[in-house]
Amino acid sequence: MTDQPSFDRMWDELTPIGRSAATGGYQRFAWTRVDHDLREWFAGQAAGRGLSLTLDRAGNQWAWWGEPSAGLRGLAIGSHLDSVPDGGAFDGPLGVVSAFAAVDALRRQGFAPRRPIGIVNFGDEEGARFGIACAGSRLITGALPADRARALTDAEGTPMAEAMRASGLDPDSVGADPETLGRLECFVELHVEQGRGLVDLGQPVAVGSQIWPHGRWRIELPGEANHAGTTRLADRRDPMLAYARLILAAREAAERRGSVATMGKVSVFPNGVNAIPSRVTAWLDARGPDAEQVLAVVAELQALAGDAGGSLLRESWTEATRFEAALSDRISAVLPDAPALGTGAGHDAGILANAGIPTAMLFVRNPSGVSHSPAEHAELADCHAGVRALTSVVAELAG
Amino acid sequence: MTDQPSFDRMWDELTPIGRSAATGGYQRFAWTRVDHDLREWFAGQAAGRGLSLTLDRAGNQWAWWGEPSAGLRGLAIGSHLDSVPDGGAFDGPLGVVSAFAAVDALRRQGFAPRRPIGIVNFGDEEGARFGIACAGSRLITGALPADRARALTDAEGTPMAEAMRASGLDPDSVGADPETLGRLECFVELHVEQGRGLVDLGQPVAVGSQIWPHGRWRIELPGEANHAGTTRLADRRDPMLAYARLILAAREAAERRGSVATMGKVSVFPNGVNAIPSRVTAWLDARGPDAEQVLAVVAELQALAGDAGGSLLRESWTEATRFEAALSDRISAVLPDAPALGTGAGHDAGILANAGIPTAMLFVRNPSGVSHSPAEHAELADCHAGVRALTSVVAELAG
Repeated sequence: MTDQPSFDRMWDELTPIGRSAATGGYQRFAWTRVDHDLREWFAGQAAGRGLSLTLDRAGNQWAWWGEPSAGLRGLAIGSHLDSVPDGGAFDGPLGVVSAFAAVDALRRQGFAPRRPIGIVNFGDEEGARFGIACAGSRLITGALPADRARALTDAEGTPMAEAMRASGLDPDSVGADPETLGRLECFVELHVEQGRGLVDLGQPVAVGSQIWPHGRWRIELPGEANHAGTTRLADRRDPMLAYARLILAAREAAERRGSVATMGKVSVFPNGVNAIPSRVTAWLDARGPDAEQVLAVVAELQALAGDAGGSLLRESWTEATRFEAALSDRISAVLPDAPALGTGAGHDAGILANAGIPTAMLFVRNPSGVSHSPAEHAELADCHAGVRALTSVVAELAG
Repeated sequence: MTDQPSFDRMWDELTPIGRSAATGGYQRFAWTRVDHDLREWFAGQAAGRGLSLTLDRAGNQWAWWGEPSAGLRGLAIGSHLDSVPDGGAFDGPLGVVSAFAAVDALRRQGFAPRRPIGIVNFGDEEGARFGIACAGSRLITGALPADRARALTDAEGTPMAEAMRASGLDPDSVGADPETLGRLECFVELHVEQGRGLVDLGQPVAVGSQIWPHGRWRIELPGEANHAGTTRLADRRDPMLAYARLILAAREAAERRGSVATMGKVSVFPNGVNAIPSRVTAWLDARGPDAEQVLAVVAELQALAGDAGGSLLRESWTEATRFEAALSDRISAVLPDAPALGTGAGHDAGILANAGIPTAMLFVRNPSGVSHSPAEHAELADCHAGVRALTSVVAELAG
């Protein structure tokens, strides 16, 4: 017996779509056949509830209970349905399904909204196919110019414009959509937690406090190509040694400074078993709750790279996205047990917050702490707790 | 004024062939137009000296002064003319040019050989095009089966058989050549040193003592794919950390054990900036004068990889190639100032030694210590010293 029957039914419907039989992971990429099936599912849910379905200028789907306008702006809830390659079931879909389930719960309670309530499915949040995360929300806020988006290509060279057209969206109509944004009073995104913060806190649901400041840097380490058999150790200029020191230093500095640092990508030249490399190019991803500490980690690594004759160059940097205090306070008052939690991941909620929309997030406990992997998980009881929390928040904000 | 006029002339003729205008490095690959030009040059040198040119069953070129037979076996000297991609001018050609120059010097002295003297140009020593080093010498000794050689393909998919045919060699006639080997009393290969051993010893020429035992190992380090932003450091299983520790441990253990170890190649999965890797595959190249010490380095790294849940698997291992003691003693008696020097590189001399031919090597000082690079170098005075040393050795062995 469940207290959220519609959640369970929707979850069972969604689970098979785009799942790999081999790994159990999901391949749900923007503007593909699987994405089309997911969008059909979303449209069916809207129709079944008598919600009016609209598409914005990026093809994001909105299902409205009530008619939002500039005069009576609506509360939006929802998330995305796409996935990273071999991703988990929860990252994205949990927020969309919980949004529909919250509307169902409110209707069961006889709730009469005082402002319109919209459920959104943002397209291409993961950027798995075209390389730009949150493409759907970035397009409507203007953070991603339409020309640039249309020209992005997937691994097979297909431009996003062509992929959109194949899915029935006119790429020429794509672009910033101030009208859609102007109908929004605020946006609340529920999302599976992508770490183990709630496991430690012993709570099923948290209120998002901020998206951490984050950036990526490219590290160039020069060396001297030479013979692996005949070059004495003392005569080598082997950039692998500096690279190894940077990997360990990144970890140590991040630990000391309460941040996270990842060296997940590297290119070695010539990358031969019997050749001392002439060059190593590596990338650093660094994030944390405190921008000053994150940048101090980077500065330490910059000094180390410099000692090795190398350099560390910033490729991107985003300051902290702080969710609106007044909105978060109202939500926390409704959810007194829910702790505040920052996150190191980017979300559509962050894009909208940076565009001036009052925005909040709810996180649901993930016992594995793993995300972007088939091992990503949330217990059903915690999913239900998330629906209940979201229902209370909507009742507060739209009641 | 030079005491080796023929060396200088030959060197000037060879220098432009296959040299890249952009880097100054050489692109002299087996069975190409450039290789054909080098072989034409060799044939011209043989003809100009009245030496009889023969090809063995791998297309290696032999220029004989006198007629070797199973009854009166000859002394062979020489090396190879091909290069690695963007290689140096000396690795290979120095031995061939010095061999012709030594014959010239002996003739100027009125030397009458008591056994035939052959100059050899071994084909495809570097294996740059088809991936197998010392292909020419391996073919005639049977270490490389003809069927396997014919089927090897270059980066464009051209089989070695087709490349041979295009150069006028019948690939069906290729194979082990015991008759050619049966005509050899011994082989002496002069080669530029590929490290800085002679720089430290303050000598222009050394006598080779051995080719170091050497091998390569593949290291598999498992991890857990996860999100670079949201996964706490304590929750990570990041194989990059173990990889970094192995790089530094390989260097430290090799130093402590008088060996060399190189981690020049790596594959990271999925190799994404914001993804903790699920797997790192790395390769170790380890060599040294003492097999026991080299294998102890490997054992230390195997233990470290095991601690990280990974493994270290042998891909190849070759025991030390010791040059024949009686031959080396005779050579050292003629060259009392030349120190004995081991080498970490493979050579045709090693292939012939393993096939039972008494073999020796001479090394010429390389001030840069760099090899397989345009920076490879030998001073002209040292090249001349090499010719004089080789001349004395030939006089001793064929006199």
